[in-house]
Amino acid sequence: MAKTGVTAPLGFRASGVACGIKKNGERDLALVVSDIPATCAGIFTKNVVKGHSLKWTMKAVSRGTARAVAINSGCANACVGEDGDRDAYEMARMVSRLVGCEAEDVLLGSTGVIGYRLDLEKIKNGLQEAFRLLSGDGGNDAARAVMTTDTFPKESSRAYEYGGHTITIGGMAKGSGMIHPDMATMISVITTDANISREMLDRALRDTAEVSYNRISVDGDTSVCDKVLVLANGLAGNPVIESDGPAYDAFLGALKEVAVELAKMLARDGEGATKLIEINVKNAPDKEMAHLVLNAIAKSPLVKTAIHGCDANWGRIITAAGYSGAGFDPEKVDISLGDVLVCKSGMAVPFDEAAALEVLRAPEVVITLDMNQGAVSDRIWTCDLTCDYIRINGSYRT
Amino acid sequence: MAKTGVTAPLGFRASGVACGIKKNGERDLALVVSDIPATCAGIFTKNVVKGHSLKWTMKAVSRGTARAVAINSGCANACVGEDGDRDAYEMARMVSRLVGCEAEDVLLGSTGVIGYRLDLEKIKNGLQEAFRLLSGDGGNDAARAVMTTDTFPKESSRAYEYGGHTITIGGMAKGSGMIHPDMATMISVITTDANISREMLDRALRDTAEVSYNRISVDGDTSVCDKVLVLANGLAGNPVIESDGPAYDAFLGALKEVAVELAKMLARDGEGATKLIEINVKNAPDKEMAHLVLNAIAKSPLVKTAIHGCDANWGRIITAAGYSGAGFDPEKVDISLGDVLVCKSGMAVPFDEAAALEVLRAPEVVITLDMNQGAVSDRIWTCDLTCDYIRINGSYRT
Repeated sequence: MAKTGVTAPLGFRASGVACGIKKNGERDLALVVSDIPATCAGIFTKNVVKGHSLKWTMKAVSRGTARAVAINSGCANACVGEDGDRDAYEMARMVSRLVGCEAEDVLLGSTGVIGYRLDLEKIKNGLQEAFRLLSGDGGNDAARAVMTTDTFPKESSRAYEYGGHTITIGGMAKGSGMIHPDMATMISVITTDANISREMLDRALRDTAEVSYNRISVDGDTSVCDKVLVLANGLAGNPVIESDGPAYDAFLGALKEVAVELAKMLARDGEGATKLIEINVKNAPDKEMAHLVLNAIAKSPLVKTAIHGCDANWGRIITAAGYSGAGFDPEKVDISLGDVLVCKSGMAVPFDEAAALEVLRAPEVVITLDMNQGAVSDRIWTCDLTCDYIRINGSYRT
Repeated sequence: MAKTGVTAPLGFRASGVACGIKKNGERDLALVVSDIPATCAGIFTKNVVKGHSLKWTMKAVSRGTARAVAINSGCANACVGEDGDRDAYEMARMVSRLVGCEAEDVLLGSTGVIGYRLDLEKIKNGLQEAFRLLSGDGGNDAARAVMTTDTFPKESSRAYEYGGHTITIGGMAKGSGMIHPDMATMISVITTDANISREMLDRALRDTAEVSYNRISVDGDTSVCDKVLVLANGLAGNPVIESDGPAYDAFLGALKEVAVELAKMLARDGEGATKLIEINVKNAPDKEMAHLVLNAIAKSPLVKTAIHGCDANWGRIITAAGYSGAGFDPEKVDISLGDVLVCKSGMAVPFDEAAALEVLRAPEVVITLDMNQGAVSDRIWTCDLTCDYIRINGSYRT
């Protein structure tokens, strides 16, 4: 085992165990612990329905420091009323007793089916085992334990030198349906040994989410448990980053690299997906319009099935842009699939079908819509829509 | 053959022929002609990208009367520049010469692939044959000729007595992907022998669309060619309906019945669909919130795959409502599948899985979300999401 993902930075240990919530006996409980209290920040779902573990964590994060993150998969701990709030508190208390901290120092995540209570007996036994197995090599185990319908664990890390100090950032994430900008059925935990103030950590996380977690879409659904958490324990020993400047920029750059890599993994591993699709909007009049157009294309089942079928049906792309709500001039729009221009000034242009087919057959497909009516660019990642998506989601609960 | 659909009212003849646009030799050109000039009204896609035949028709409808509607399937006549506008004009001229009217008396529809020009030679030959075959029994042929991926022709008609006159309303429609409120890849033509003013006909159409065409969703995509047209030739001989009152109400009621029947057929025949899903929102605080919640649920691939898999996964329904953008209190919400209550006050309630399975196995599934925080009710029809949707749309163009 190697020091990957959340255990890449100094002073973080993790583990992932099977406590019996998942019927198939797979890992379903992850624990991440910082050796010392870490500065923390979080971003949470905008869904008005919020899971009980998520609500606990929103409150706990607002205190600004944390020691541990415990995440179970297989049960969302959502829509079960006050019992769910009590169960979240109990779960945090169990972790706090093991780790030796306050319950409020424990951040939680629960992902899975809605409407069922957590089995606290299983959680308790699982947490004891997870605590015993905590290790500086445990990042991969933790990443596996948070998976639901994910087909592979998602980890990323970066180390960089700044002012004589080596700063490391690591992260893990789980998808893989209910993915759409402004969080998704997505949980991501990022750890770092950087010494950074609460305020700047929070800002870095928000700036980062804008180009990573908030730029992926699998199916347009967003869940009630989505969150991304970041813990910074300062063990790298760098002078505290507490304002703008090159030290912050270096940190932000590395954080974005980790988050973008995780986000692209989430899109690539969208339920049933066979391809990663990157959609670029160029020269839009404003950010809002770029956002509307990107979202509409990324959500369109017709675009996603056409890409799956390697059909260069660009009419669906301009159609989706057209109904996005953005009030643009379609007669200025150029569309390319990879390097193949298929639409110029809103009109069909003759193109090499064989070249387009080659673009569409690749595991990564880049679509570019140049609006030619402004200077704003943006991008989003999504995946193709396949029969496996239907198979996976037709019987998720049962 | 019988006087069905658009040929049910007095004074309308129709036909549908194969002119060679569709590669498989199926019918692809429909013609509907009123014996005398008819008052007309129309509703058109809100997509900023608009097909050339659609743009022609928007202008023609604004004149207030029409003699004929010609619709081809297999080619959308969209995104081909000024050539497309000229082709639409030529097509209207061809019809006008056959029928003996102005080009502007001819309404057009083109549905199919975007980015290809109409083959006017084929259209010309097809229109000549279609004109020769015009018949008072031709409604079904016309309904067949407008089909793209539809699996069955969609026709409906109603006759009612008012003040000693029999008034008949008939209609046809085609789907079946790219369906979402505010029109879809949907074309519908309604004919009636009612004598009604332009203003009241227009109002009746708009009121009707609100409870029919604008209340269906297949995949959330809306196309560039969507329209519904209504022609009223007055041959029923009733005193002109030119203001509110019982005569208008009787007409509106019958029109709504025809349109709702067509709209439900469109939803039921959504690409790959095996079930019609009716989603009801009750006791919402306002219309906007009801609309947001209905749309989000109807568009959610996770809800639609769960229903397909007969999985009573109501958590996906409340989740979709939660991310809809409606700012409601989730702790007041009740959810039922058919008559089976599965969620009360935002919380799971024990329910009879066998009874829920029976509800979900039926060809028509009714979902009710009672928000319990207002007095507005609304409903929408959609369908389940299946592998056949993917198969159909993965290779539509090729």
